[in-house]
Amino acid sequence: MVKLNDETRAAYSRYLLELLEQDQTTVFRLKFLDLHPVDQVEVFQQLDETAKEKFYTLMTPSELADIFEELELEEQKEVASNWEDSAMGDVFNHMNADDVADFLGELHEDQREGILTSMDDEDAEDVKELLTYEEETAGAIMTKEIVSLHETEQVSTVLERLRNEAPDAEMIYYLYVVDEAEKLTGVVSLRDLMVASLDATIGEVMSKRVVSVHVNEDQEDVAQLIKKYDFLAVPVISNTEVLLGIVTVDDVMDVLEEEATEDLAEFSATRGATDVNISAFQAAKKRTPWIVLLMLFGMLTAGIIGSFEETLEQVVLLSAFIPMLMGSAGNVGTQSLAIVVRGLALGNFEKKGLVRALGREFGTGLLIGITCALVLLIIIPFFFDDSLYLAGIVGVSLLISLAMAAVVGSVVPLIINKFKLDPAIASGPFITTFNDIVSITIYFSIATTLLQFL
Amino acid sequence: MVKLNDETRAAYSRYLLELLEQDQTTVFRLKFLDLHPVDQVEVFQQLDETAKEKFYTLMTPSELADIFEELELEEQKEVASNWEDSAMGDVFNHMNADDVADFLGELHEDQREGILTSMDDEDAEDVKELLTYEEETAGAIMTKEIVSLHETEQVSTVLERLRNEAPDAEMIYYLYVVDEAEKLTGVVSLRDLMVASLDATIGEVMSKRVVSVHVNEDQEDVAQLIKKYDFLAVPVISNTEVLLGIVTVDDVMDVLEEEATEDLAEFSATRGATDVNISAFQAAKKRTPWIVLLMLFGMLTAGIIGSFEETLEQVVLLSAFIPMLMGSAGNVGTQSLAIVVRGLALGNFEKKGLVRALGREFGTGLLIGITCALVLLIIIPFFFDDSLYLAGIVGVSLLISLAMAAVVGSVVPLIINKFKLDPAIASGPFITTFNDIVSITIYFSIATTLLQFL
Repeated sequence: MVKLNDETRAAYSRYLLELLEQDQTTVFRLKFLDLHPVDQVEVFQQLDETAKEKFYTLMTPSELADIFEELELEEQKEVASNWEDSAMGDVFNHMNADDVADFLGELHEDQREGILTSMDDEDAEDVKELLTYEEETAGAIMTKEIVSLHETEQVSTVLERLRNEAPDAEMIYYLYVVDEAEKLTGVVSLRDLMVASLDATIGEVMSKRVVSVHVNEDQEDVAQLIKKYDFLAVPVISNTEVLLGIVTVDDVMDVLEEEATEDLAEFSATRGATDVNISAFQAAKKRTPWIVLLMLFGMLTAGIIGSFEETLEQVVLLSAFIPMLMGSAGNVGTQSLAIVVRGLALGNFEKKGLVRALGREFGTGLLIGITCALVLLIIIPFFFDDSLYLAGIVGVSLLISLAMAAVVGSVVPLIINKFKLDPAIASGPFITTFNDIVSITIYFSIATTLLQFL
Repeated sequence: MVKLNDETRAAYSRYLLELLEQDQTTVFRLKFLDLHPVDQVEVFQQLDETAKEKFYTLMTPSELADIFEELELEEQKEVASNWEDSAMGDVFNHMNADDVADFLGELHEDQREGILTSMDDEDAEDVKELLTYEEETAGAIMTKEIVSLHETEQVSTVLERLRNEAPDAEMIYYLYVVDEAEKLTGVVSLRDLMVASLDATIGEVMSKRVVSVHVNEDQEDVAQLIKKYDFLAVPVISNTEVLLGIVTVDDVMDVLEEEATEDLAEFSATRGATDVNISAFQAAKKRTPWIVLLMLFGMLTAGIIGSFEETLEQVVLLSAFIPMLMGSAGNVGTQSLAIVVRGLALGNFEKKGLVRALGREFGTGLLIGITCALVLLIIIPFFFDDSLYLAGIVGVSLLISLAMAAVVGSVVPLIINKFKLDPAIASGPFITTFNDIVSITIYFSIATTLLQFL
């Protein structure tokens, strides 16, 4: 029994690497295959090029398939570049069609064709079908390796069938029932089968209450559905309700993580740069365009302030409150944005209307603004001499800016969502820059107006 | 068959509400129970107080348990306040112990005791045990309703046992094997049992390669483990390796969502305010403290700028670039923060060292800073007359500020993580405010120094 924890992992890896180096191939195979595929991958990643070459010759296509499935895309590409098309075809025949499609989808057309022709026809067909579905839909993440039943089958026959088909199917705990036209008509769990009478028919024990998703449905909606109902899988159907495959809970966990990473990336303008294992130069290349773009927008505020140069010369201290004012508006806007983006992601907006949500955000912004303005009216005169008028200007500007910031932060993602785009593209930095411009304009307009009366 | 989609959902709900109002109780029960529990809850939530009272009398404790389990905590409290302790005990006997413990954990000690004594002894014991574990650990989210096997049992006997025990267990697809001391020794999937020879023993067909978690392990780590290995469940063991329960994948999906929401909330200073269904006043109450606190920190920048009043009087236009400078430093800092927080959440830092990550962030910040400074040197003289010296001051300040911001944005969460706290508490707004102070100080110091030579 090999159960790895953080302490034993490193030692066991070293032991395996030594076995391989000393050409103790039989022992190596035995010990290596005793690991869970996920742990096998961690050992594999530590091999150098020569060791990898040796490793490929020791393993069967089916064993290599287990490892290949678990690798990241970049690693898969590197490994594949060392293999012949025919060797790859052998390995891919042992992988789930959805994993093969994920990988081939990233390759050049010609390369893809070469590999597909070297695969078994039946497996290649499944992969080709999956490649036709759009990215990030149910079709793109579903698995084709399923067991489907007919209503007329007897429970005992099905249990017997499962003994043969179970090893190949990705999921045998939910079994979906179809009619002669392959249309989905019901579902029966393995648990139901276990407790059913052996001579009952599937039609008698199945549940007709089967929740399914359309093949073009967004993967995030599929994830939310599986999460809502605590399903282990959900069937995917075509326009004509034909059962095409299933999406399983483990695929959906990856989707949830992906979407959370995406949301946070949009929030921080780090799209494509969240990988911590790329070089400083690569990271800078991906992050700089956002920063320069935002800086150019930020230059608008410089232009606005520049146009109020006379007001500034009159009261130089006005500029002292720019950071605080901008920071506060930015914070309130980001809060509103986060609440709306998360609310949309979790589907919480279905229950209540959007207009109500907007009104609520405006009210919230106003209440926060009033509190902050009152605090400022007390503390500014305390720190800056003879500055009650300054406190007045800053306080009123803050109040209006915060109410505006809350509305901007919530309206923008909601509008984007209305147009069926991902609300997170109204990323935090863009909302903040927009709010900077709004609050600076409010501030200097109010200051210029009020200073006329002094 | 009742399969609800967004269109039919509203109509079917109305139909059910009418049936209940017209006291067509038999039809109502039939039609209502034909719904999936998750959909039942949506209908239940639309009942008014009188209708709810009627509803409670129509349903059995077991049926009510299905609904109660799916409600949010606040709704559970409201429902429970209308029930006698004994009625609640009846319902709770039909719920999973972990769901009961979640709810009771939120109640007052006396109230909890009253309900526990009204429950069946065996069920109450499980709940009491779960209540002893710390929040957000494996123990707190695990389920006790499991089927455990012994190595000497025959496959045929186990299959027979499952026919009886399956309806009560939360998960029968993974079955865990224990020795006489109840210590975990192996795992066998229902899939393995299906294909095994009927007269084989569990010891022969089980896998000894069983990954488990300790009862005190953080729920986020449990979630990552299940996700990594694509498990449907993972066994929870005590210090002495005794099998205590299991954590299932559906519980873990909720944990992942919870953690993602938490991360985003910390990022946007909206902790506790992400619920979109609270009033503007409640939202303001939760959000204002953060904004006021950040505003007070922001006043530090006002003080710093105020102390450079003379420099400002010399060149009023210096203040025009404050927002752009602050915004850029804030954006770079937030990028670094997001990358580090996400990297820590996904466990990506294990592979590479922390020092290396820091060096990389500094390098990235410097590269971004150089690019931005070059862009500024070109565009500032273009928009502002006779301002090459201004462009120089702003450019150099920006370069240094961005490199600093990248380091601050990544060092702070890493330090917090070292102390085993949640890195996301170094929330975006705090990092940004800190970076404001740093970059304003750099800017005015450089400006004051350089202006001496003009």
